[in-house]
Amino acid sequence: MRIQIINPGSAPGTTARIAAAGRAFASRGTEVIAVPATDAPASIEGPVEAALALAGLVEQVARGESDGVSGHIIAAFDDPGLDAARSLARAPVIGIGEAAFHLASLVAGRFTVITTHARTVPLIEHNLVRYGFSARCVRVRVAEISLHSLDDLHSAARDRISAEIDRAIREDRSEAIVLGTAGLADLARSLSSEHGLPVIEGVSAAVRLVESLVSLGLATSKIGGWAPPRRKSLPARLSGLGD
Amino acid sequence: MRIQIINPGSAPGTTARIAAAGRAFASRGTEVIAVPATDAPASIEGPVEAALALAGLVEQVARGESDGVSGHIIAAFDDPGLDAARSLARAPVIGIGEAAFHLASLVAGRFTVITTHARTVPLIEHNLVRYGFSARCVRVRVAEISLHSLDDLHSAARDRISAEIDRAIREDRSEAIVLGTAGLADLARSLSSEHGLPVIEGVSAAVRLVESLVSLGLATSKIGGWAPPRRKSLPARLSGLGD
Amino acid sequence: MRIQIINPGSAPGTTARIAAAGRAFASRGTEVIAVPATDAPASIEGPVEAALALAGLVEQVARGESDGVSGHIIAAFDDPGLDAARSLARAPVIGIGEAAFHLASLVAGRFTVITTHARTVPLIEHNLVRYGFSARCVRVRVAEISLHSLDDLHSAARDRISAEIDRAIREDRSEAIVLGTAGLADLARSLSSEHGLPVIEGVSAAVRLVESLVSLGLATSKIGGWAPPRRKSLPARLSGLGD
Amino acid sequence: MRIQIINPGSAPGTTARIAAAGRAFASRGTEVIAVPATDAPASIEGPVEAALALAGLVEQVARGESDGVSGHIIAAFDDPGLDAARSLARAPVIGIGEAAFHLASLVAGRFTVITTHARTVPLIEHNLVRYGFSARCVRVRVAEISLHSLDDLHSAARDRISAEIDRAIREDRSEAIVLGTAGLADLARSLSSEHGLPVIEGVSAAVRLVESLVSLGLATSKIGGWAPPRRKSLPARLSGLGD
Amino acid sequence: MRIQIINPGSAPGTTARIAAAGRAFASRGTEVIAVPATDAPASIEGPVEAALALAGLVEQVARGESDGVSGHIIAAFDDPGLDAARSLARAPVIGIGEAAFHLASLVAGRFTVITTHARTVPLIEHNLVRYGFSARCVRVRVAEISLHSLDDLHSAARDRISAEIDRAIREDRSEAIVLGTAGLADLARSLSSEHGLPVIEGVSAAVRLVESLVSLGLATSKIGGWAPPRRKSLPARLSGLGD
Amino acid sequence: MRIQIINPGSAPGTTARIAAAGRAFASRGTEVIAVPATDAPASIEGPVEAALALAGLVEQVARGESDGVSGHIIAAFDDPGLDAARSLARAPVIGIGEAAFHLASLVAGRFTVITTHARTVPLIEHNLVRYGFSARCVRVRVAEISLHSLDDLHSAARDRISAEIDRAIREDRSEAIVLGTAGLADLARSLSSEHGLPVIEGVSAAVRLVESLVSLGLATSKIGGWAPPRRKSLPARLSGLGD
Repeated sequence: MRIQIINPGSAPGTTARIAAAGRAFASRGTEVIAVPATDAPASIEGPVEAALALAGLVEQVARGESDGVSGHIIAAFDDPGLDAARSLARAPVIGIGEAAFHLASLVAGRFTVITTHARTVPLIEHNLVRYGFSARCVRVRVAEISLHSLDDLHSAARDRISAEIDRAIREDRSEAIVLGTAGLADLARSLSSEHGLPVIEGVSAAVRLVESLVSLGLATSKIGGWAPPRRKSLPARLSGLGD
Repeated sequence: MRIQIINPGSAPGTTARIAAAGRAFASRGTEVIAVPATDAPASIEGPVEAALALAGLVEQVARGESDGVSGHIIAAFDDPGLDAARSLARAPVIGIGEAAFHLASLVAGRFTVITTHARTVPLIEHNLVRYGFSARCVRVRVAEISLHSLDDLHSAARDRISAEIDRAIREDRSEAIVLGTAGLADLARSLSSEHGLPVIEGVSAAVRLVESLVSLGLATSKIGGWAPPRRKSLPARLSGLGD
Repeated sequence: MRIQIINPGSAPGTTARIAAAGRAFASRGTEVIAVPATDAPASIEGPVEAALALAGLVEQVARGESDGVSGHIIAAFDDPGLDAARSLARAPVIGIGEAAFHLASLVAGRFTVITTHARTVPLIEHNLVRYGFSARCVRVRVAEISLHSLDDLHSAARDRISAEIDRAIREDRSEAIVLGTAGLADLARSLSSEHGLPVIEGVSAAVRLVESLVSLGLATSKIGGWAPPRRKSLPARLSGLGD
Repeated sequence: MRIQIINPGSAPGTTARIAAAGRAFASRGTEVIAVPATDAPASIEGPVEAALALAGLVEQVARGESDGVSGHIIAAFDDPGLDAARSLARAPVIGIGEAAFHLASLVAGRFTVITTHARTVPLIEHNLVRYGFSARCVRVRVAEISLHSLDDLHSAARDRISAEIDRAIREDRSEAIVLGTAGLADLARSLSSEHGLPVIEGVSAAVRLVESLVSLGLATSKIGGWAPPRRKSLPARLSGLGD
Repeated sequence: MRIQIINPGSAPGTTARIAAAGRAFASRGTEVIAVPATDAPASIEGPVEAALALAGLVEQVARGESDGVSGHIIAAFDDPGLDAARSLARAPVIGIGEAAFHLASLVAGRFTVITTHARTVPLIEHNLVRYGFSARCVRVRVAEISLHSLDDLHSAARDRISAEIDRAIREDRSEAIVLGTAGLADLARSLSSEHGLPVIEGVSAAVRLVESLVSLGLATSKIGGWAPPRRKSLPARLSGLGD
Repeated sequence: MRIQIINPGSAPGTTARIAAAGRAFASRGTEVIAVPATDAPASIEGPVEAALALAGLVEQVARGESDGVSGHIIAAFDDPGLDAARSLARAPVIGIGEAAFHLASLVAGRFTVITTHARTVPLIEHNLVRYGFSARCVRVRVAEISLHSLDDLHSAARDRISAEIDRAIREDRSEAIVLGTAGLADLARSLSSEHGLPVIEGVSAAVRLVESLVSLGLATSKIGGWAPPRRKSLPARLSGLGD
């Protein structure tokens, strides 16, 4: 099977890191490709960048459908465009935030999210309510750091995340951590060993969940909220996906 | 004061109808202008069209801010782009769905929404949860009709809405109706007389609420979730609004 | 239009302050009158005083209806007697707590209430649940001060409220403040400038919301929970308002 | 011990019926007295009558406290004045609606309330939310009947309640019934036999719960929301109960 | 009437303490017997011990039913086996956690639970949600102490509970305390005097509540979720209780 | 990897069917074994059978841990013993109800559960609340049929489930179906084709989710609610798993 990961931002380093995380945890026989959203802003740090990225994200979903991918992953932690992508796709679509929450709730009664952009906190909190995890996620914490600095597993940025995990265990009584970033699978593993609790990274989680859905023959339901849009309300280049 | 209503769709008839509804209910001294989102699809009937409209909607918010408008209204009933618009604007921003829900809950203990597109029902239901009205709105009903047909106050389309109101009173025990369409203020008034309960239309509600906020000196809070985006993560044409 | 503000307490200073706040923010052409509830206790500091005030508050609603007022405002922050007033009135009725919550949630994702009487905290918290704002209002804080001392904008009492606002921003991550007092509109404006976030006062908010409802032709729904009481279950002096 | 049941209405027949129900189910050694609220309307059929009754209800709580009663019961199904009574009393105070909900949830996973006045439905629903029973009470049904007609156990009024119980079992999947009336203990017993499920009446339930609290040495907490009012904010005749 | 208290654990000291607490607060004429679950672990400190105890607890419910007891009490604070016991019994069944929560919410707007085993906190929190008390119970605190050490009313263990009560009043704004242990009725009374707020112990609360249900003729509803199991799906020794 | 599926019941046909469903959907390289709980009742049709099965289920978890299995699945739809199993195991543990809910919510906005035993409905509803899916699962429907009769894909029993699916689409507005039975993967596939929406079966879902957790290096968190029990509170045969 072939899984397409869409980076709603356009920074090439991020797309490469996401691709690597996806491939490292995919099953043998699964091909993972990662693409940026068309005409996207460099990175998604809040609702404005997400709004600017959505049209290009939808384009990539449409292209992936035409190319026959088996599933789509949206690789920004606040899962922008999830409804639009599901309306347009016949293949399964999963957001990396969503993926991480699902797996966290299977290994922990309570968990804490640690994100890097304060502007995304309300978006994440709304998603938690909508998905049903608001009673399982005790708190969304912010470690204001640059993602670049996390490439070094011994950096000061890593220390700040580690310090937030300490607080999550002590103050939130949390039993697992969800990293609110895309593709830092090695960091997750290292922090998990250090703190003795599960640390979940979203891209790898999403790859495994898409594989699970595909293997079980499950695809996005097309009756109800994610029914395809009317053909005539779509621009010409997308109209083949309309109803 | 000058209020800008943004139609996320581009159908000129809709923009004109919205402008008329806004002007009919504005205070003397309030100037109401209505503009379509840049490069928008004709109408917003679900999440795909909303995704395609968001970048152009953000552009219009930015232009309005540059032009010094006193407030913004987003005139699609599922309030697309509300977070992005609030992040970018210093002036108040109100969605017409949101506006209608607030006023409905001031005149009725329970209300029913009647919308025209089944694909928007989940979006509306999520908004109700997020805004806090999920216990006040008993049900989102769908009357599958074309908006054009509603221009005639004696059409079959009107009869279908009227029939849904009857059901809302009888089956939902509802005390007020919110019309999930933009600008049908005359229809609202006519249905209210016929059924003997408040019928709320969103554009007129939003105009009055924006006026209220402006008169009271209240603008969107810029600390927290709607803080302006970082200047460097915005495209050049918007960067003047960044932080 | 003529709007009647009912002070459930009888302290003349409070009624005068409420009247001034209402008039300062009303539209041109709106007449604002303020009356105390008949036979009311001096001030409403908890459920016992509210219970003692309700019959007199109902009397004033009835008198206002006879006099043909366009709308009623209940000017104690825990909105006592709102259901009774709505059952009896055909004109719209708004409580000042409720009014402030609605406007706060239009300009902020999260807000904190600062009240002056600890005994009213549970009443306010129940209202927040019932109105639907319990997820938007992060916390009800108490600044134990005398209202009289707030007349001076540079008093120690003001400093205590200001200190609570600092805590709300830092500890509650709040984006706006609702003042749980009646009529301190100047204080609200001053605190808003100082702290750089919206500070909402209820009387002015309620006046603008009543005006909005009246302009839009919206009145309290008389089917369901606020249907008029049966004529025969009312005392003679009120029976004209029964059904 | 001596328990005072306060009828917020003044209809002597109702007070007598309430007294009888209370006495029939009290333990040996418990004295039950029933009094109407001072200057009360005949019966409480919605929020207006409740507002008119509260001052007189508070008076009776105060008199009971002076007389040294062991506990108070408020005998209208929507529990009017419960907060005020608890603020004023040192002895336990229980509402009959509340009492019935507690016992229903001990013998059934889901229950239906059957009340006789449509105007009280929202009040009851708010109480269910506030007390915590909104997920246990599936529905509040209305059987529009006169209470007088229920004195005859074979009346048409009884048949209407019985028909609602049938619907509650079939449509609501309910496992118990709460009668939203005061004092019809014989009717409850008869309906329970007929339908084969628990039918709970509030006055008898409240008497047993007050006895339980008193026996266990539990009285209303006086720290927090039910702290006594300030002495100076009370009228002279009540000031002995203030703080 | 005869009430059977089942200790899901087998430690004889605990069973004796539970019996004493039950008897001390039962009405004259009520016989209280206390039995351990058959083949039970010594004490229930989390979900594993509860799982091991359930079959033996069910056996004791069955034996009690055969012996004609009037009601059953499950005397571990996380109420293990409550659904199973209610399915099997015709007499009322009450858990001591549940009993304490009900009475606490009648005398306090907010309460704190203080338990002795951290492993039971999630079980208690789930029960609070399920029963409907999650908004009334502000927090479940843990005082890690040995129950044996509580026999001495002046021990260090008592001091730790007392310190948690101080924190509950100050940090949780709690108005009552529920002790998450079985049978420490004297301790509850002593702590209540010391701190000036209600302290509720579950065994005594449950005895009074079972008495109340029995006196009112209320037994577990046998339609719906607690219907008796099918006779053929039960082992021979229990099949007499099946349907 | 080796995954152990524990059938809480002892009917050999069921264990075989579960094993087949698990194997059919496992990845190449995954060994699936299925065992009944020790001394279990034939099938789990409600809380009494679950109570009787738990000790034996715990024994199998312990044995699986000794044998070094990679993960455990509890194969009754109401997920009995999930907390106990997670406390005892270091490997991941998933219930089949839980697994099906997670995957359903990834492919549908709303879903309906169709179960075969009315007695398990409240247990399933409580799980939905606890897991966070109560807003996603619209309704738990019961098709009272014998599981044996479902072996024939053209039976009357299948027709009854099919009829419930029709009702779920029409009355519940559901977008996916969760089968509340264990191992009927072929039936799920057949019904999905017939009705044109996803139909999820729990055993196959759980196998894929356990594989995902194991591949990602995620195991049950051992801090907090699922910490291992104290060694001294366990029977000798289990004490090796204690702390």
